[in-house]
Amino acid sequence: MKSDLDRLMLENKLDAILVTGPARHNPAMYYMTGGGHLTSGDLIKIRERAPVLYYNPMERDEAAATGLETKNLAEYGYQELLEKAEGDQIKALAMRYEKMLVEQGMTSGRMAIYGKVDAGSAYATFSALQKILPDLEIVGELRNSVLMQAMATKDETEIERIRKMGEITTGVVAQVADFLTSQKVKDGLLVKSDGRPLTIGEIKDLINLWLAERGAENPEGTIFAIGHDAGVPHSVGNAADYLRLGQTIIFDIFPCEAGGGYFYDFTRTWCLGYAPDEAQALYEDVYEVYQQVMGELEVNARFEKYQDRTCDLFEAQGHPTIKDDFKLQEGYVHSLGHGLGLHVHERPWSGRGSTDEDILAPGAVVTIEPGLYYPERGMGCRLEDTVWVRPDGNMEVLAEYPLDFVLPINEG
Amino acid sequence: MKSDLDRLMLENKLDAILVTGPARHNPAMYYMTGGGHLTSGDLIKIRERAPVLYYNPMERDEAAATGLETKNLAEYGYQELLEKAEGDQIKALAMRYEKMLVEQGMTSGRMAIYGKVDAGSAYATFSALQKILPDLEIVGELRNSVLMQAMATKDETEIERIRKMGEITTGVVAQVADFLTSQKVKDGLLVKSDGRPLTIGEIKDLINLWLAERGAENPEGTIFAIGHDAGVPHSVGNAADYLRLGQTIIFDIFPCEAGGGYFYDFTRTWCLGYAPDEAQALYEDVYEVYQQVMGELEVNARFEKYQDRTCDLFEAQGHPTIKDDFKLQEGYVHSLGHGLGLHVHERPWSGRGSTDEDILAPGAVVTIEPGLYYPERGMGCRLEDTVWVRPDGNMEVLAEYPLDFVLPINEG
Repeated sequence: MKSDLDRLMLENKLDAILVTGPARHNPAMYYMTGGGHLTSGDLIKIRERAPVLYYNPMERDEAAATGLETKNLAEYGYQELLEKAEGDQIKALAMRYEKMLVEQGMTSGRMAIYGKVDAGSAYATFSALQKILPDLEIVGELRNSVLMQAMATKDETEIERIRKMGEITTGVVAQVADFLTSQKVKDGLLVKSDGRPLTIGEIKDLINLWLAERGAENPEGTIFAIGHDAGVPHSVGNAADYLRLGQTIIFDIFPCEAGGGYFYDFTRTWCLGYAPDEAQALYEDVYEVYQQVMGELEVNARFEKYQDRTCDLFEAQGHPTIKDDFKLQEGYVHSLGHGLGLHVHERPWSGRGSTDEDILAPGAVVTIEPGLYYPERGMGCRLEDTVWVRPDGNMEVLAEYPLDFVLPINEG
Repeated sequence: MKSDLDRLMLENKLDAILVTGPARHNPAMYYMTGGGHLTSGDLIKIRERAPVLYYNPMERDEAAATGLETKNLAEYGYQELLEKAEGDQIKALAMRYEKMLVEQGMTSGRMAIYGKVDAGSAYATFSALQKILPDLEIVGELRNSVLMQAMATKDETEIERIRKMGEITTGVVAQVADFLTSQKVKDGLLVKSDGRPLTIGEIKDLINLWLAERGAENPEGTIFAIGHDAGVPHSVGNAADYLRLGQTIIFDIFPCEAGGGYFYDFTRTWCLGYAPDEAQALYEDVYEVYQQVMGELEVNARFEKYQDRTCDLFEAQGHPTIKDDFKLQEGYVHSLGHGLGLHVHERPWSGRGSTDEDILAPGAVVTIEPGLYYPERGMGCRLEDTVWVRPDGNMEVLAEYPLDFVLPINEG
């Protein structure tokens, strides 16, 4: 939680953090500012002190609305610095950071940097700053950053926002199910009232529309993949594909609050009209593992333990798993789940690269999403819900929705 | 244009470029891949050679769909590298880049890096790579990068996509105008059929809905600001504000294709019902400058020339401008416009920091957006259209829309 940030900084020997970039669609800046409408800015937080937001003068009102202490970047004399740097913009920017850090008394110690910006700009600017302030250790972290550690548990306000996104998400899923089951059938395909086959592209347009009606954004797109594509976990589905009865459809939807806020993540696998035996057996295997693992989750356990358990359960059913071959492309080929918040994927992690810190701590929000993939057999199945580890240690699915596989279609 | 990339790399002494991150909402990767559904990946382009896309194995089909030469990142042995790096993930990633670059014969010379990713990760990873390959000069550029130079002119396919976004944008603007003018009035405020005042938040929700209906995304939000807020250029408007007659409303809308593709950028200033003399005079000043500057644009001229011209014209009208005081907060306080493409703001630039290369070259797409701001007097005005510099040297507004100021409201 954000209230843990000072403690986490101390534990990780960080004296400061610097966040850069816009406030929207930039989780680090959103987290620290509350997601105002700042197109760019910098934020410096010294340990045990309140953060300071540096804003561009055109955005003074937006900066003030964050409620943070603010400073106007125009006061730092970029033009003079640029002259001093003989026109070298990167050096001038680094010198501006130097001025800001000197003012904050932060010219030595360890400072981590965050923010979704251009890789080249960040590399060049912070390399230049490192040269100017050699006693300051500029720290870059990967996905297990201190900020991601803080984000890994949520307070009640964050939970309510994720829950709301869950209601929106399952609302749209129900609307899609209603829409599909109310279509006509011709030659084994769903067809519209004009007799032309419905396409996946049309379904995705409706999903975006129905999300917008509920005030949500869908920046990462939607997976709606049928048949072979359902057998490839990250295939988003081909827009021109038709909706054929009796084929597995993986519908994985992960929208966020408008403005790049909190996400939800949810998957169902459907078969329209009927399920061939092979598909039904696949679904039942996934369903069984889903129920088993969901029932076993325990507060403060390491998340990876359930990845191992899921592999064991799928292997007992006779499926190959990623446990034995991490390049696997058939069977159970991914990890069980991931944390969810301002990133659609964040800590805690359940798969390779997870650590002892990736636990189901009270306040964690994680997805549980076992799946099986057989692209050569033209099918795949995944079931996913988002689970909150409650402060009392109990697990709560934040938005309940039926796990039904076959969507009945009136072929009359 | 992308076809200029090899020439631009040569002119800028770049031997290679490396692009990292997702393909969506990441202009550099979108530009190089066509915007597939890759959640992360790397792309290396050596000068005079076709780019190579490195994908994660779960996304092999999405990678193949780009039509580029592809390589599976799983083949580069990250786990072994991680062991060799004694668990240091950043070092292991840098070693993986080393393997990719060795394979491409790119271990010396100059290589620029691009891609919207976490600043800290990029800084740490490329700093580690720089240490491993000291003969390779890793170059980070700011907004005037070689890739931005290529992007600064568009081919016909790109123009058609921007034009389509222009039609969508002005379609929504017309729908908003129709909606506003069909409301009732009570005590000088627009009210809904239930008698409650309409809010800016409700208008923004409708804008998002109507954009989604047309298949567009609105990741950067919309400026819909009335009164004092209209006097602050980057104020997005307060969601709880009512729509009062006789106040200036700045409506600046900049949506993009779904999936983070091409943008459009468009502004009108409206007064509901009637315009007080002071607001009318403000509008007329902006309108006059808009028409004057639009009429003067010439192919291959430096864009900044028209910023100077705009300042002169506004000063002749008696307004303070940024020409004399770059911290100015009243009068004409920003630059005339900017290039537009996969970024809502890109080259050519018209304001401070622009260079001799920021010209109205054939194929450029720029916004022209003069404006005046008087927050203390509770008003502001901006008019903006997006202009294509055609190959024949003529200027074309990509989506025409009336410049009307007063929206008639039936107060009966």
